[in-house]
Amino acid sequence: MDCCVIPLRHGGLSLVQTTDFFYPLVEDPYMMGRIACANVLSDLYAMGITECDNMLMLLSVSQKMNEKDRELVMPLMIRGFRDAAEEGGTSVTGGQTVINPWIIVGGVASVVCQPSEFIMPDGAVPGDVLVLTKPLGTQVAVNAHQWLEQPERWNKIKLVVTKEEVKEAYQEAMFSMATLNRTAAGLMHKFQAHAATDVTGFGLLGHANNLAAQQRNEVAFVIHNLPIIAKMTAISKACGNMFNLVQGTSAETSGGLLVCLPREQAAKFCSEMKSQSSAAGGQGAVGGAWIIGIVEKGDRRARIIDKPRIIEVPPRGSQAANQDNSATSLDPNSHPS
Amino acid sequence: MDCCVIPLRHGGLSLVQTTDFFYPLVEDPYMMGRIACANVLSDLYAMGITECDNMLMLLSVSQKMNEKDRELVMPLMIRGFRDAAEEGGTSVTGGQTVINPWIIVGGVASVVCQPSEFIMPDGAVPGDVLVLTKPLGTQVAVNAHQWLEQPERWNKIKLVVTKEEVKEAYQEAMFSMATLNRTAAGLMHKFQAHAATDVTGFGLLGHANNLAAQQRNEVAFVIHNLPIIAKMTAISKACGNMFNLVQGTSAETSGGLLVCLPREQAAKFCSEMKSQSSAAGGQGAVGGAWIIGIVEKGDRRARIIDKPRIIEVPPRGSQAANQDNSATSLDPNSHPS
Repeated sequence: MDCCVIPLRHGGLSLVQTTDFFYPLVEDPYMMGRIACANVLSDLYAMGITECDNMLMLLSVSQKMNEKDRELVMPLMIRGFRDAAEEGGTSVTGGQTVINPWIIVGGVASVVCQPSEFIMPDGAVPGDVLVLTKPLGTQVAVNAHQWLEQPERWNKIKLVVTKEEVKEAYQEAMFSMATLNRTAAGLMHKFQAHAATDVTGFGLLGHANNLAAQQRNEVAFVIHNLPIIAKMTAISKACGNMFNLVQGTSAETSGGLLVCLPREQAAKFCSEMKSQSSAAGGQGAVGGAWIIGIVEKGDRRARIIDKPRIIEVPPRGSQAANQDNSATSLDPNSHPS
Repeated sequence: MDCCVIPLRHGGLSLVQTTDFFYPLVEDPYMMGRIACANVLSDLYAMGITECDNMLMLLSVSQKMNEKDRELVMPLMIRGFRDAAEEGGTSVTGGQTVINPWIIVGGVASVVCQPSEFIMPDGAVPGDVLVLTKPLGTQVAVNAHQWLEQPERWNKIKLVVTKEEVKEAYQEAMFSMATLNRTAAGLMHKFQAHAATDVTGFGLLGHANNLAAQQRNEVAFVIHNLPIIAKMTAISKACGNMFNLVQGTSAETSGGLLVCLPREQAAKFCSEMKSQSSAAGGQGAVGGAWIIGIVEKGDRRARIIDKPRIIEVPPRGSQAANQDNSATSLDPNSHPS
């Protein structure tokens, strides 16, 4: 599970909490703070929990930065983290900071809640539909962006992508990682989700496998569609498939929720994600939603079909993004070939 | 405050939580794990909280260690952390591990409790007595032990201390840091403590100042006695007072609780610490207790008197340690000169 759920000594309540910390992966310290916070909270959201009672921040300041850089960078990172916490309806009340060779940023999110407030991620049944709420490809985008400065690397991918496209994809990845999965968590209750997880370091397939393994029923997750930030599939192929993006194991940071929904609710979930997104001024605020597969009877594993359909997700702000990019109308039973 | 206390949405309960992480400072990985855990829990104990609902462990594995060393060291450290958590009546249910140049070990402790379970550290009144539950000098002991291998450093202190004494002091410091402040936390309730803090990175005076600053009444803390691991005062002086040990600002790791007790309760608190310690097989299990000062009317600051009385605390196991070393009979009003 993404969180630990601890039964408390008081009134049937449970303490749900989670921690995460990692190293910066985008250049903008403010956005990095937001991403770190979104990543921590995401574990709560994956359990359908929309509230958070408290956050702690974990920081290490790099000893290799000079004082001027530190004073510039660290307050911005802290500010980004705090702003995202506030957007999540919570606040940061404590934490710990150390000096270290590398910068580390992360936190702890805790909430005390009644059983009705969270959805144990073990209720998938055959016939359920799998929905993903952010596009894949953040790792590829972040790496490709670094390669703009590394001619040897850049030469390998420049035939399939322009510098402009890489920059747009990087921006898209950055905003996507900084997006809270809170709206999706709320809709999990409204549309009776049976289970969910968030997609992070093990990639879509890794987390789908973990989720499948802990189901009460004998089910298997079959993934047909892969929504991926535009051009990232081409880059991944051009560099010898080193990310295993289409195989589903490319690491994501602060990825979307993978939600198992009753068949009759999935389209409504997607459509409400989309309308809340539009109301909030675009996909940025709440994430998107794509039907990516189905739940069958099986041996508690997940797999991606041969030749899955790649859904190229255009960067927000681009012309294509202003059209409908939520694949709510895909028939999860149609096997694209 | 050492912890954050978050009022919850449910039944008058509060979430109390704290986090701490740092770098190894003793050579034994198992003991290091215990120390890290004791250090995290200590913030709860300082609020008189004896229970902990959940712990998370924060770890970074050093990229500079080879795989064999990692496989030897990290499981021991984790084991030590878990064992100490178990001794504290709690368990470690989650956490996060990363790779980093340096090893990091720490954790998060959380508890949901009723108001009666914790003692807000703001109730000191003039006439209270200050008690400390572990001796000072852990930083000096750890450093002196490293100097055994550094002739240049060792030469500066070898006139005042033997190698054997340094090794004994290091052992004493290690066991003291690994000791949970849980017994002291329990006795804070029994003897109606008015406030407490744990002594860590800012040293005794630093934490005493923080505690004094947050009192509701206009009080000042006056410290007369300094219980210090035997020989550490001499070492500190011999190396030009670089630790500021007798000035009260030498950093401690997982130090004791500094407790404000009603005058008529302080001796009883010390005596019960001592008898519980004997019952548990020596000072190691629960810490000791020394009356170190008094609370006067004042401007919410702490100070150490000129020429405080140094109480040399002999290492456990030594002959002297088998005699009474708890200074429960010191009259806090007598100013030693």
